[in-house]
Amino acid sequence: MAGIASTQAAAAGRGEVTEQMRAVARDEGVAVERVAAGLAAGTVVIPANPAHRRLKPVGIGAGLKVKVNVNLGRSHTTSCLTEEVGKVEVALRYGADAVMDLSTGPDIDDVRAAVLDACPVPLGTVPVYQAAEAVTEIADLPEDAFLDVIRRQAEQGVDFMTIHAGVLRAHVPHVKGRLTGIVSRGGALMARWMERNDRENPYFARFDEVLEIAARHDVTLSLGDGLRPGCLHDASDAAQFAELDTLGRLAARCREAGVQVMIEGPGHVPADQIAMNVRRQKEACGGAPFYVLGPIVTDLAPGYDHITGAIGATMAAIAGADFLCYVTPKEHLGLPGLDDVRTGLIAFRIAAHAADVARGLPGARDRDDEMARARFGFDWDRQFALAMDPDRAREYHDLTLPDPQYRTSRFCSMCGPRFCPMRLTRELAEAAPSESKPV
Amino acid sequence: MAGIASTQAAAAGRGEVTEQMRAVARDEGVAVERVAAGLAAGTVVIPANPAHRRLKPVGIGAGLKVKVNVNLGRSHTTSCLTEEVGKVEVALRYGADAVMDLSTGPDIDDVRAAVLDACPVPLGTVPVYQAAEAVTEIADLPEDAFLDVIRRQAEQGVDFMTIHAGVLRAHVPHVKGRLTGIVSRGGALMARWMERNDRENPYFARFDEVLEIAARHDVTLSLGDGLRPGCLHDASDAAQFAELDTLGRLAARCREAGVQVMIEGPGHVPADQIAMNVRRQKEACGGAPFYVLGPIVTDLAPGYDHITGAIGATMAAIAGADFLCYVTPKEHLGLPGLDDVRTGLIAFRIAAHAADVARGLPGARDRDDEMARARFGFDWDRQFALAMDPDRAREYHDLTLPDPQYRTSRFCSMCGPRFCPMRLTRELAEAAPSESKPV
Repeated sequence: MAGIASTQAAAAGRGEVTEQMRAVARDEGVAVERVAAGLAAGTVVIPANPAHRRLKPVGIGAGLKVKVNVNLGRSHTTSCLTEEVGKVEVALRYGADAVMDLSTGPDIDDVRAAVLDACPVPLGTVPVYQAAEAVTEIADLPEDAFLDVIRRQAEQGVDFMTIHAGVLRAHVPHVKGRLTGIVSRGGALMARWMERNDRENPYFARFDEVLEIAARHDVTLSLGDGLRPGCLHDASDAAQFAELDTLGRLAARCREAGVQVMIEGPGHVPADQIAMNVRRQKEACGGAPFYVLGPIVTDLAPGYDHITGAIGATMAAIAGADFLCYVTPKEHLGLPGLDDVRTGLIAFRIAAHAADVARGLPGARDRDDEMARARFGFDWDRQFALAMDPDRAREYHDLTLPDPQYRTSRFCSMCGPRFCPMRLTRELAEAAPSESKPV
Repeated sequence: MAGIASTQAAAAGRGEVTEQMRAVARDEGVAVERVAAGLAAGTVVIPANPAHRRLKPVGIGAGLKVKVNVNLGRSHTTSCLTEEVGKVEVALRYGADAVMDLSTGPDIDDVRAAVLDACPVPLGTVPVYQAAEAVTEIADLPEDAFLDVIRRQAEQGVDFMTIHAGVLRAHVPHVKGRLTGIVSRGGALMARWMERNDRENPYFARFDEVLEIAARHDVTLSLGDGLRPGCLHDASDAAQFAELDTLGRLAARCREAGVQVMIEGPGHVPADQIAMNVRRQKEACGGAPFYVLGPIVTDLAPGYDHITGAIGATMAAIAGADFLCYVTPKEHLGLPGLDDVRTGLIAFRIAAHAADVARGLPGARDRDDEMARARFGFDWDRQFALAMDPDRAREYHDLTLPDPQYRTSRFCSMCGPRFCPMRLTRELAEAAPSESKPV
């Protein structure tokens, strides 16, 4: 089956080199053979649905830079189409590698079409959200509807889809001892459907059909963690790992079918359990790329979960996670607005980059070194240009020293001119770098 | 000498149990014998100058909760006395364990008196900043002046002081290959004084006198890292570790003199070098408490260095750092304002708490579990009360759902009512916790 799939993985398996592989290799500064080998082995994915026009392909997985996803999408209570397109623009401006449209409520198709059109990076969805909109009670949804919506979205050009195929009937009772039960929307919907209908998860039961659609449209499957923990207490429990083992078996079936696959992960995890979680995913899932949501390292900071998440994400990425789903300051409190998208995204770009540096990715620190030189050279404009968020860096600097003369001043308002240690260093015969004396 | 010092460490060494030890033991939920043993061994400090009235003693070190310090203070270009007192109030409101007044410029004594009066937590300073104010050129400062200012501040009630006694003449040339030279204000001032006067660091040369003052007033010495790295490139280099080894020898002299001592640490450090830095400090300094500034894990995020710092601080604290100096969003750009103090402090309280949980400190996760129960119970007011920043959590929640009816609603604007997974879990016969059914 892999031989006939129209996917990047199948092409790599046949020894073909596609333009998407070349684009990724250029972007990453690695040999295209390495990208192809990763695709063939299933340790790398390139979510690139041919129906997504003007897509700039992005590689995710072993040996590549850690990537960051931005979630957006309206909910029943909040937001509208233009606001979601505005979020795409903010996501692109501040460097998102991928975008997921998690819209629920009316007009889902229109929102997605608009987002897809505005979005040159890979776009992901959670199809069950749309499927569930068709009925008042999820349990009334016919099995076919779960598949139909995948097919329609695949035709529309969605590059990767979260499919909660690993939430099995046998896993649900493991949730009983938890403090927060099921916290994945998709996971909760599947659990309810199974219980009310007394049947197995339709995505699991008909996984071959899922694979067929994914193989035809090169949709990368992102196997969702419907039973991820929703608080520190619930982390690394039987429910979570029973699902993970199932996802591992499904990932093997994806590889066999030539379908690209990655695995979604927690969630809320105490910091000392993060590396263990990554190792366990890599072992259970044959090295498939790991896509983590956070993880958040404490439950006590609503309003700051972009920070609790960035801490966990850095540690996860250092341990081997490949793809980070951002968390915004509004997590646990409400739907994010434009500025939350920006803040959450930068927090997670920090996590991704810090991990690239820590993992020793060749050249990862070059830009940091450039920033260090700009700082020591008091080149403020260059510092702003090198910053992950140039607009905010300039804004904060100019709050206290707005006059243009301060763009070349050899101090900032933090230490003031007399106490600037870098200025003092330059005047030390013993310590100043030789090329920097004449300041 | 230790026998006659008026310090918590000396008291513990004599087998005495002070009211400060009892207060710390109560606060931490540990036996007072354990606190006393830590003080006697030098692995714990309680910065508590008897002249600091209404001080609530705080313990820092092995086996205790990780603590967070807030820096404030005016600079030559910016701020005034009332604004700095306002920062103390914000720091206390949002849970700072200690405060450092780093003021430079005019009116330093008045600012410190006002801050000390407003501050029931330990107050720290960097005396060389005030010493330097007396002269236009630091090199003109007589050696005695370095000591006089310590004595005056000790009499005033300062609980801990950063003393850059480890920046030796022989270390300064190691700085030459760096990208950002010396980035510690105190370190740069000492280096300039030594070079211009062709003499050794006065704090080092007259360390016995420093010890005498510290022993008499129970000032905890915080041995400053004047040669800490100012960018990823410069981390873990010869200059940094030469100073650290010197600090280790000075720490041994502190213990011998019955003087409480902690060690300051970097700075800017790639994430993969953080644990090594902590291990090295503990070994070199006989287990003295480690007080880290960040560390920041990338140089690319000016405007977000509370986040780059919180990531590094979490990793440092998990590896054994005891005391975290916060970093604000304005770091590298300007002097922080009130809201920066709040944001930076919460970021570092997250780091400290995440590390307490990860290190398995007994009871550390209890409040997280309470939060999880409040979430699953849709008790929004309880969630706000448990949050590290209740004001911000309530503000963000109310942005999209301001009506009081939503304080008891079984959803938020993120998923909306139909898709709330926790609500769905409660309706699952197989998964709902038995006591939570009737919602």
